[in-house]
Amino acid sequence: MSKPKIGFIGLGIMGKPMAGHLIDAGYELVVHNRNRDAVDELVGKGAAEAYSGKEVAEQSDILITMLPDSPDVESVVLGEGGIIEGAHDGLIFVDMSTIAPSVTTQVGEVLAKKGVQSLDAPVSGGDIGAQNATLSIMVGGDEDTFNTVKPLFDVMGQSAILCGPLGAGQTVKACNQILVAVTIAGVSEALTMGTKAGVDPIKVVQVLSGGLARCGVLENRGERMVNGDFDPGFRIRLHYKDLNIIQKTSNDFGVPLPVTSEVFELFKTAMVKGRGELDHSGLLTIIEDMSNIQARTGQ
Amino acid sequence: MSKPKIGFIGLGIMGKPMAGHLIDAGYELVVHNRNRDAVDELVGKGAAEAYSGKEVAEQSDILITMLPDSPDVESVVLGEGGIIEGAHDGLIFVDMSTIAPSVTTQVGEVLAKKGVQSLDAPVSGGDIGAQNATLSIMVGGDEDTFNTVKPLFDVMGQSAILCGPLGAGQTVKACNQILVAVTIAGVSEALTMGTKAGVDPIKVVQVLSGGLARCGVLENRGERMVNGDFDPGFRIRLHYKDLNIIQKTSNDFGVPLPVTSEVFELFKTAMVKGRGELDHSGLLTIIEDMSNIQARTGQ
Repeated sequence: MSKPKIGFIGLGIMGKPMAGHLIDAGYELVVHNRNRDAVDELVGKGAAEAYSGKEVAEQSDILITMLPDSPDVESVVLGEGGIIEGAHDGLIFVDMSTIAPSVTTQVGEVLAKKGVQSLDAPVSGGDIGAQNATLSIMVGGDEDTFNTVKPLFDVMGQSAILCGPLGAGQTVKACNQILVAVTIAGVSEALTMGTKAGVDPIKVVQVLSGGLARCGVLENRGERMVNGDFDPGFRIRLHYKDLNIIQKTSNDFGVPLPVTSEVFELFKTAMVKGRGELDHSGLLTIIEDMSNIQARTGQ
Repeated sequence: MSKPKIGFIGLGIMGKPMAGHLIDAGYELVVHNRNRDAVDELVGKGAAEAYSGKEVAEQSDILITMLPDSPDVESVVLGEGGIIEGAHDGLIFVDMSTIAPSVTTQVGEVLAKKGVQSLDAPVSGGDIGAQNATLSIMVGGDEDTFNTVKPLFDVMGQSAILCGPLGAGQTVKACNQILVAVTIAGVSEALTMGTKAGVDPIKVVQVLSGGLARCGVLENRGERMVNGDFDPGFRIRLHYKDLNIIQKTSNDFGVPLPVTSEVFELFKTAMVKGRGELDHSGLLTIIEDMSNIQARTGQ
């Protein structure tokens, strides 16, 4: 079987390196993006250019989107000149954006009427993961379609797990972002308690890393948090976007989230204070502010 | 140098096996406890019995206490017939209970006037850790005293870390219990979101364990939480006790804890609902109740 022709829409900080890996792996790509520079770069690597979602859809067997948020996906798929206008029987639509699960299923239903199979496949691992092809990919959809697209996921990431039907990838991504945000808040409160009680917070990181309190946040970021190094990484403003999705999703499904909603308000505080470009571990500075510890970021 | 003579007060579910390990390691022990059965058992292994804190103190070089809560420590040390009455120059007092850091420093100051050196040395690892001598021990006090007692810590636990001056062990333990409680809440909300959105929560455990959301709670307890197995482990009522200490400590040191206090209210809810004997991961049942998912504990 010859390789499928791949469409790729959304060549931002994530999408551009992901599309690049597919070209490097020998796939024929047709790309579209609002920003010209990324298009030129990929055309220089051998991609073809298309001038609308419709054109990309017409020329593709598998169409991947990597867009900022729910409204972008709705617009690129369902808007004027959108993917829906070039949709054809047998097309596979793979949305790798992180958006609301309800938007995923709604867009998938419209596309299904044109004979399009959809997968949602949000990722974790950030821009570094996209560059190094070490993303974790959480997939929703049917198993046959997943197996068809799996070789592409293997080019772009280090793991791709089918989590359930369409929307399940977004749901699991939401669960992931809940736990990461809550863990960051827990580490921040623990470190602030240690600091104000006169214990060297590095001791707190060391001791807590050895027991039941151990976590990825402490391991990847604990020392840097103590040193006030909030170089991103994954930015507060992006996690705040994800928490907005989580809030909407928890409303849709009827899931009170008492702790996550408190953490959401703290992320909102960080946004209000102009700290959206810090790594999300910079939530520590908000907890420190509350304790009247001078923020170590100079913000 | 001959081995120091060890006093041990508080032979409960933790203290009894800890004292047993010291006897097995060849130390001479004098013990005291309100409950006779544990005393008889240790006397059967070769310990001497004393009838008050005063008597234990008179006969010991190093005196260890392992008691339920702050008031117990205050009473055993400062009450009638207490340790203070038998305190002598050169005695080392090692409190391994988990109590408020402010009580630790206050008791330490009184004992210091009698020439007693104090360490606080709360543990994590639970009754299993006490039985298997795999406790993690968080120590506050001066370095010479720590080094003197270190061989005993090595008999009872797998690691002992000097965290700072007297009280620092309690502070780090409080930080640990903050992060564990908050992580349990985060895992609970993530699993509940997955369940209500129709994703198999085992998939949530699997996927989240592979990334930044990974944590000891998910690793040790994730699958059991999904299966509704809340066999303790560390009980909700004990973590609730620790959260009360944390609340007091955060008041003492001026540390607002917006997320931990929300988690505290959820633990309180679990207590009110009569779930104090579940493992602390049973907090999941409270989040499930809120989402109107039938609790899988039959409670």
